[in-house]
Amino acid sequence: MLTNVEHIGIAVRDLAASNELFAKLLNVQPYKAETVASEGVSTSFFKVNQTKIELLEATNPDSPIAKFLEKKGEGVHHIAFEVEDIQSEIERLKSEGFTVLNEVPKRGADNKLVCFLHPKGTNGVLVELCQDIKE
Amino acid sequence: MLTNVEHIGIAVRDLAASNELFAKLLNVQPYKAETVASEGVSTSFFKVNQTKIELLEATNPDSPIAKFLEKKGEGVHHIAFEVEDIQSEIERLKSEGFTVLNEVPKRGADNKLVCFLHPKGTNGVLVELCQDIKE
Repeated sequence: MLTNVEHIGIAVRDLAASNELFAKLLNVQPYKAETVASEGVSTSFFKVNQTKIELLEATNPDSPIAKFLEKKGEGVHHIAFEVEDIQSEIERLKSEGFTVLNEVPKRGADNKLVCFLHPKGTNGVLVELCQDIKE
Repeated sequence: MLTNVEHIGIAVRDLAASNELFAKLLNVQPYKAETVASEGVSTSFFKVNQTKIELLEATNPDSPIAKFLEKKGEGVHHIAFEVEDIQSEIERLKSEGFTVLNEVPKRGADNKLVCFLHPKGTNGVLVELCQDIKE
């Protein structure tokens, strides 16, 4: 089950400027910043009720975010849905015909295991599944 | 205050096919379909916790959704935030420098008053504010 829109990821060119902009828009300050070196992104998070807004800036030119910005410009990059058991959701979605980009969940920002579905199979929307890492 | 991510609007070419696709993805059926003639869209809604996924199909070639599809293809069209008092939020956001596309809220789908912010001022994200119409 996809139980919640956990966050919406937005690709931006200048994280500091966008932090200011979204703080004005949402009337709240970001509560966390985090760099995920393996993904080449610096992120910041805002909370709106039960959904986070995650701003994503590329940390190097080979980052998936750098490539997205080059191709499409700033804007919504992905929608992340919370799941309780990411492995069983991967199996369910594969059996429904969706293409899972990484069948072995990887460690993402915000203490999550994440995987992505290919946007060609989801009407152009890059869908992320994420599960809290319980330690 | 923007109190909730009320819905995420996704532009699709074929609403019937996308209804099936999102029913598989979200593992839930759409709970409502609605045509908004003034906006040239047919919509359907899925519920995931406190956020709706709204699929949008153009009903004519002059529809904003038809133009979006032509320019950008299928994908996330807008992010809608719930507000309690849309008029006071419009004033607040204008005073913060955001460009409001319609300063007089208009009637949208799902019994809401809505207005949009220009995506050039919000990192390429088309932001909708929406307020329930209480009658």
